[in-house]
Amino acid sequence: MPSHTEESAVTVLGLGPMGRALAGAFLDAGLRTTVWNRTPGKEPELVKRGAVAAPTPEEAVAASGLTVVCVLNYDAVDAITRRDAVAGALNGRTVANLTADTPGRARETAAWATGHGIGYLDGAIMTPATTIGTPDGVFLYSGPERLYLDHRPVLDALNGSHTHLGTEIGQAAAYDIALLDIFWTAMTGYAHALAVANAEGITAKELAPFAKGIGSILPPIFEQLADDADSGNFSGEDNPITSAASSMAHIVHTSEAHGIDAGVMRAAEGLARRAIGQGHGADGFLRVTEILARHRLPGTDTRQRRR
Amino acid sequence: MPSHTEESAVTVLGLGPMGRALAGAFLDAGLRTTVWNRTPGKEPELVKRGAVAAPTPEEAVAASGLTVVCVLNYDAVDAITRRDAVAGALNGRTVANLTADTPGRARETAAWATGHGIGYLDGAIMTPATTIGTPDGVFLYSGPERLYLDHRPVLDALNGSHTHLGTEIGQAAAYDIALLDIFWTAMTGYAHALAVANAEGITAKELAPFAKGIGSILPPIFEQLADDADSGNFSGEDNPITSAASSMAHIVHTSEAHGIDAGVMRAAEGLARRAIGQGHGADGFLRVTEILARHRLPGTDTRQRRR
Repeated sequence: MPSHTEESAVTVLGLGPMGRALAGAFLDAGLRTTVWNRTPGKEPELVKRGAVAAPTPEEAVAASGLTVVCVLNYDAVDAITRRDAVAGALNGRTVANLTADTPGRARETAAWATGHGIGYLDGAIMTPATTIGTPDGVFLYSGPERLYLDHRPVLDALNGSHTHLGTEIGQAAAYDIALLDIFWTAMTGYAHALAVANAEGITAKELAPFAKGIGSILPPIFEQLADDADSGNFSGEDNPITSAASSMAHIVHTSEAHGIDAGVMRAAEGLARRAIGQGHGADGFLRVTEILARHRLPGTDTRQRRR
Repeated sequence: MPSHTEESAVTVLGLGPMGRALAGAFLDAGLRTTVWNRTPGKEPELVKRGAVAAPTPEEAVAASGLTVVCVLNYDAVDAITRRDAVAGALNGRTVANLTADTPGRARETAAWATGHGIGYLDGAIMTPATTIGTPDGVFLYSGPERLYLDHRPVLDALNGSHTHLGTEIGQAAAYDIALLDIFWTAMTGYAHALAVANAEGITAKELAPFAKGIGSILPPIFEQLADDADSGNFSGEDNPITSAASSMAHIVHTSEAHGIDAGVMRAAEGLARRAIGQGHGADGFLRVTEILARHRLPGTDTRQRRR
């Protein structure tokens, strides 16, 4: 085995599907890769490929200048890192936390890390485990730029695109949340569409080419409407919110006539109806963005400053 | 003006943005186009381009072998057609109803038409008014094949792709509902993502390239998962429903911490939690398709036979 400096070494904590993919990509790139998982049995294949399996997390993190953490959520991160032995071993080293959670948890974890002399980058992986090590992987980071630049060579071993969103530590999680919001809401719509189609005697296979077609008009619409959303000028010329509400009512009615739960679409329709009720019926659908945030109490602007 | 037979003539009832686009495309294709709208003032530009504005709907439908109807919903269709003068004028002629509504209303309208000696095709337009007359328009039809083939030459004047889904009259509306379900649920997710991003100091413009990226992975996922959905074999190997539920909880938590309504995602998360509670936590997210339809009472299978 070639000798490695700490700069060509990396530790991966968490060996779920994503953690294993990360460790595998580091190994493929020739990095000395140390791995640890809370429950054993996930590491043998990685060890066969050259990984070092550490018996404890403190020994794992001591083996590398950079530790990448990818577990279920930040409660799971805390359960691993917030013990004296681990925090002590991390002192003077860097954690890149690629675990998904909320921006608030990212900020709170960064504060803890700073208090313990630990360099902290927060990150998010926007693509499935199968994309790791390929050009299709999408990685977002936030935190100190110096730290990001120092560890970029190791992170680059994962292949894919890496974006530093800024120094405000919550940004990676905020982008992650917003993008997962789009993804999982859309997937819920797809699942619901399949249930309705099925009740009408249409198979998923029959619907697929059309579902693909309707899905493919979304990305350009997202882009086109971004300016409207930022300016608060929601043009509804060709497609007013009244027309969206009418479609939504048809979907709710058809679903419930078949005994299919329409709770998600009922909630969506409720937003459209609220916008209409407030006099925005001729506006475009994105007017609901304002309705969604309307509940914010005066004086409790929780908006984060970024830099 | 060249002389026209009834085969090269068409009537358009309803001159909203979509009706005007339809009439405009017929005019561009050289068809004798008669138009009518409940409220006047929508027709002058079309008349300038060669359309004949009929003073009453009965006179409008009498001018052509095929009448295309595109109004708000089937209540609006009924208000126009279900009067003796109009029904009488339609006797022996054909209506292509491109108005959006439910499959149930399509079936009921077809039964009414048949009872009055009116040929009836139901249809749905899956693309915005701006696509009409271009190759990008997508039109779906259901109803008697003979009728569809007879009028296809006139409908082809609209350009775009035309698909006859079958003779069961509710199919066009059923596809329409399923596809709009995907579209409007996804748009609701996008609006919500923008609200959350904004609260975290991220503009729509900043989110746009990533939103576009996450949107572009949806169409291939819809296609890949179609087989799973039809077979009821929901593999969750790389992305179990527990992981989806965890993301959803982060989205709900982040939203509500900012005072942003999370009703849509709460309803979606509820479906995922129900699937997990029923022992499907290791399955893929589309398992919720079954959960959605679980409420269907035994013995009330409302599934439609198609042919």
